[in-house]
Amino acid sequence: MALSIISPTIRQQVASLGRGLSASALLAQWLGAIQRENGKLNALLCVATEMSRQQAHALDQLAERFPEGLGPLAGIPISVKDLIDTSFLPTTYGHGRFREHVPDGTALCVTRLQRAHAIIIGKAHLHEFAFGVTNENPHFGPARNPRDPSRITGGSSGGSAASVVGGMAQASVGTDTGGSVRIPAALTGCVGFKPSYGLVPTDGVLPLAPTLDHVGTLANCVEDAAIVTAVMAGIDPDRWLSPPPPALRLRVALVPSLVNRFAAPEVSAWFDSLVHVLQSRGTIELAGSIELDADEIARHQGNILGAEAYATHRTWLAEHKDAYGADVRERLEDGARVETWAYAESLRFRARFQHAVRSWFSQYDCILLPTTPIPAPRIGETTVWVHGEARAVRPLLTRFTNPWNLSGAPAISIPAGQVSGLPMGLQIVGKPNADGRLLRIARRIEADIASHLP
Amino acid sequence: MALSIISPTIRQQVASLGRGLSASALLAQWLGAIQRENGKLNALLCVATEMSRQQAHALDQLAERFPEGLGPLAGIPISVKDLIDTSFLPTTYGHGRFREHVPDGTALCVTRLQRAHAIIIGKAHLHEFAFGVTNENPHFGPARNPRDPSRITGGSSGGSAASVVGGMAQASVGTDTGGSVRIPAALTGCVGFKPSYGLVPTDGVLPLAPTLDHVGTLANCVEDAAIVTAVMAGIDPDRWLSPPPPALRLRVALVPSLVNRFAAPEVSAWFDSLVHVLQSRGTIELAGSIELDADEIARHQGNILGAEAYATHRTWLAEHKDAYGADVRERLEDGARVETWAYAESLRFRARFQHAVRSWFSQYDCILLPTTPIPAPRIGETTVWVHGEARAVRPLLTRFTNPWNLSGAPAISIPAGQVSGLPMGLQIVGKPNADGRLLRIARRIEADIASHLP
Repeated sequence: MALSIISPTIRQQVASLGRGLSASALLAQWLGAIQRENGKLNALLCVATEMSRQQAHALDQLAERFPEGLGPLAGIPISVKDLIDTSFLPTTYGHGRFREHVPDGTALCVTRLQRAHAIIIGKAHLHEFAFGVTNENPHFGPARNPRDPSRITGGSSGGSAASVVGGMAQASVGTDTGGSVRIPAALTGCVGFKPSYGLVPTDGVLPLAPTLDHVGTLANCVEDAAIVTAVMAGIDPDRWLSPPPPALRLRVALVPSLVNRFAAPEVSAWFDSLVHVLQSRGTIELAGSIELDADEIARHQGNILGAEAYATHRTWLAEHKDAYGADVRERLEDGARVETWAYAESLRFRARFQHAVRSWFSQYDCILLPTTPIPAPRIGETTVWVHGEARAVRPLLTRFTNPWNLSGAPAISIPAGQVSGLPMGLQIVGKPNADGRLLRIARRIEADIASHLP
Repeated sequence: MALSIISPTIRQQVASLGRGLSASALLAQWLGAIQRENGKLNALLCVATEMSRQQAHALDQLAERFPEGLGPLAGIPISVKDLIDTSFLPTTYGHGRFREHVPDGTALCVTRLQRAHAIIIGKAHLHEFAFGVTNENPHFGPARNPRDPSRITGGSSGGSAASVVGGMAQASVGTDTGGSVRIPAALTGCVGFKPSYGLVPTDGVLPLAPTLDHVGTLANCVEDAAIVTAVMAGIDPDRWLSPPPPALRLRVALVPSLVNRFAAPEVSAWFDSLVHVLQSRGTIELAGSIELDADEIARHQGNILGAEAYATHRTWLAEHKDAYGADVRERLEDGARVETWAYAESLRFRARFQHAVRSWFSQYDCILLPTTPIPAPRIGETTVWVHGEARAVRPLLTRFTNPWNLSGAPAISIPAGQVSGLPMGLQIVGKPNADGRLLRIARRIEADIASHLP
């Protein structure tokens, strides 16, 4: 079932433009794949066929007369989560009432991609208003996992993941408030990168919880994710890519207090064996363990998310309550019940937590943990059994990712084998505001995994 | 005599592309100006006429089909100091032996400009090997000051300054090891920005003294200089430009220990009255004075410059001694005499000085001083009289600029009136590695000066 995609990287693709490869011919292949796959997977809510062709044609002319003028994403088809404004394509926010909505402006991160000559090929399916992690959507139907279409993609950037893994886009822009880039990347088997808080501007992105919202990237490999994210951050990708990955043994911290409690036994076994392989190859050394109080973190993250999401939606909810899907409406109503003092207390907790997280990175290069406690559940499955307990899918799926929204630390999920025939993601967390360093570490681990796993 | 150039800014120019303005028509005007002016001013050593036309044409096609793909410098003609490698144009380094030299590669900073769709219109005159500040050049003749062609441009990026002020390029890339961007900017009446040490990569730039060398920008206004420099640094210009200039009164430090000793009396008077105006308008407050030992700084800067320049040129000098101009040869031979212990001592002095400079910026927002102690001397003039003493032009011209090469702090010269009918530059020095902040301060002061001076 696992698709075996050996596609060229963004760098290889861009380097071959004008040397035997035309952007127009390349685009035709991608549009063909969308035609074949999108009906099955429900990854893209709309496709920019005509505009994409015009742009590819313009890039071919540029390649002929001013090849130095080609941007670092020239001709690369990128899908954009439909939470993000585009003036040239409808932007639904995953909500029925906005089916025909075309915003006046385009988000700054998308403008930067276009300035780097990415072709915005379409808008990607999402959990309604990005407030959920399954991408089951009452307005647009569920997105489907390319590895097994009876299963969820994970969310809320699930259409982004399905478009990349399903071969309909070379990369995708997602957003991540509690894990919404990393979870679908892990469950579908691609890379998902949530950079440090604030690095990619959220101008033109519909907020969910503004102090937790991050714009991030889904892609086939760490290098591709780095290039796309750097462009969105307004940084020349070369500044992140040119130093080679570190050669020294990485000092790694694990988080057993979190992982042992929530990971399904077969996920724990997979993770332990992965860590063992990285250790025995000399890539990492176990330098320590981090103690996290999972209940405290979930409570404070929940308060901030709930309070801010309700603040965002308050007016619309009052006017159009019935237009919301039942699950999102219920969550927003929960958010309305967060007391002011509780929100304030949670903000104070976060400040202390951020301080603690920064201090860890004097001893450790990175933190390793699984991206999710379980592989992709089936569509419609709301409860799974872990350690003999029935657990609700939604809060379980975000357990390993949401601490890094609270801390603002950069975190990346990379594909790292399978459990029960389904893809698993290894999550690597780095020092806040040292994103280039995390990406170099991730490239090293990615290469090591690639040389070890079949 | 002062040219009154009211040219559109880079942002205005780029915004009008495809809306009534074509890059090709624009380019034709610039090429016409080069045809008229370059013979008089000797600003450009070669011009990329045919390649520029091709590129402008390609940009016009892009503007039609993929306008979002236009870079932040689309169609902007930029000249590049001929110390900087270009594989598409000869690169002479200002030295006769390299008259026909075409390098294999292009400097990274130039590649980044092209990727942002600048049109590299030609290579700019320089002091031979950038080792001097007059731009009198035995191989290519002197560059001439557009404000008075009997006077020097200042150097070593004098052709860059003449090309901008003479209307032959919208901006120019220069290098600055002791003042070589800021001095010609001041003496010809344009903006010259030397960013923090290391911010713009020097890959593909012929070194003079690698630990003092900076790549910088000459332009008509601070905003243009910021855009070009950000692109060369691999940073989206919006990241520097979008926060507005500061509204609070700027806490300014002066450097009377340096200025009172070397500035010509009429320059002191001009500077004092400028400071007074900025104070009385509420733009700045005088927050303190900085003590500099000018002799110590000149000695240590001289040791490092001499030792490193000799190390750079040692082999060539041994083989082609007679190919060097007399002044540069003499300076290199002086450099050969710097003892190892003296070089080491000067490096230690620099480390202490850099520490001191960083500490100042907890109290001050910026330092203000004139860019040069005198206005532009006449071509051939080697001595000027200041305070009844005969002073050699070369060391005098760098007195106010070279401390900021030693410290690595960002420094910008902006046009600020005249002395004896010749342009003067106000130098603003900022906190190391806070270039965006310095540029915002400079935009504020620039606006204030513009509203005050005729």
